[in-house]
Amino acid sequence: MKLEKGLVQVYTGNGKGKTSAAFGLALRAVGRGLKVYIVQFIKGGFDYGELYITDKLPGLTLKTYGRGRFISEKSPDKVDVELARDALKKAQEVVKKSDVDVLILDEINVALSLKLINIGEVLELIKKKPEQMELVLTGRKAPVEIVQAADLVTEMIEIKHPYNSGFKARKGIEY
Amino acid sequence: MKLEKGLVQVYTGNGKGKTSAAFGLALRAVGRGLKVYIVQFIKGGFDYGELYITDKLPGLTLKTYGRGRFISEKSPDKVDVELARDALKKAQEVVKKSDVDVLILDEINVALSLKLINIGEVLELIKKKPEQMELVLTGRKAPVEIVQAADLVTEMIEIKHPYNSGFKARKGIEY
Repeated sequence: MKLEKGLVQVYTGNGKGKTSAAFGLALRAVGRGLKVYIVQFIKGGFDYGELYITDKLPGLTLKTYGRGRFISEKSPDKVDVELARDALKKAQEVVKKSDVDVLILDEINVALSLKLINIGEVLELIKKKPEQMELVLTGRKAPVEIVQAADLVTEMIEIKHPYNSGFKARKGIEY
Repeated sequence: MKLEKGLVQVYTGNGKGKTSAAFGLALRAVGRGLKVYIVQFIKGGFDYGELYITDKLPGLTLKTYGRGRFISEKSPDKVDVELARDALKKAQEVVKKSDVDVLILDEINVALSLKLINIGEVLELIKKKPEQMELVLTGRKAPVEIVQAADLVTEMIEIKHPYNSGFKARKGIEY
């Protein structure tokens, strides 16, 4: 099966569920026999729950390019800049090869907002996307140029969060 | 592994990604060896992409209780009311049995807003939730009482959608 027409989707906002929505979409797509490639920016070097299951899903490839650490916008570590560039390079490669149905660039908006990668290159990538490829970009603070270039944009808004009750990220739910 | 503390999460709003976020969360949880049960209200009797893969995920059970058809709020079909009640009964059973780590009630907010089920019973269900069970409620138009009873509420807002370009739901992406 091939998609007739792939769109450019963006999941942004400060609420929960951006990466989860992309992974849920990936699950549905592989259920249909589509080929999915996930490139994770920023994240990595950490024990994420999704890593334990994605390699069991046929047709899904996941590559992480990050250290999962705080990155300073003013003076990002050289390693983080290089990792983000490697991630973008991988995305460009996948777009060029054109053998994937759904390409997910997880947290790429964060990499853009931290200026680890260049917005012009990402807009170029969007333009070069094969007609039948679905492209999904996630992460808070999606730049306005990305929103303009996308077909479908959803903002996750945090309505309520138990921060004040001493909330900590939980294994199996938040990671 | 068991969760130390399970929360009540709500994904609502008119934007995309509510069900996908819940499925992404399910994927992460089963990746950690947690037991996940998904009860789908409204949906069913239809060819959904996620159904082809969820039975391949160890620790995940998915039951659909619906016909996937338009339901009139003024005069819902008797069958749809019965199916929604059966779904709620199943959810009550899972809460009572208490052998599941994550219980997802997909589209329950829609069933509530159509008054197929009673809000009092759902609030009761939330109250009876075992301490270690994560409860996830999805669907647009979450009633205010549900938002109040939840720990964590995210609203998916539609910022941009290609409706005007003759958009049709696509196999592998939207279903």
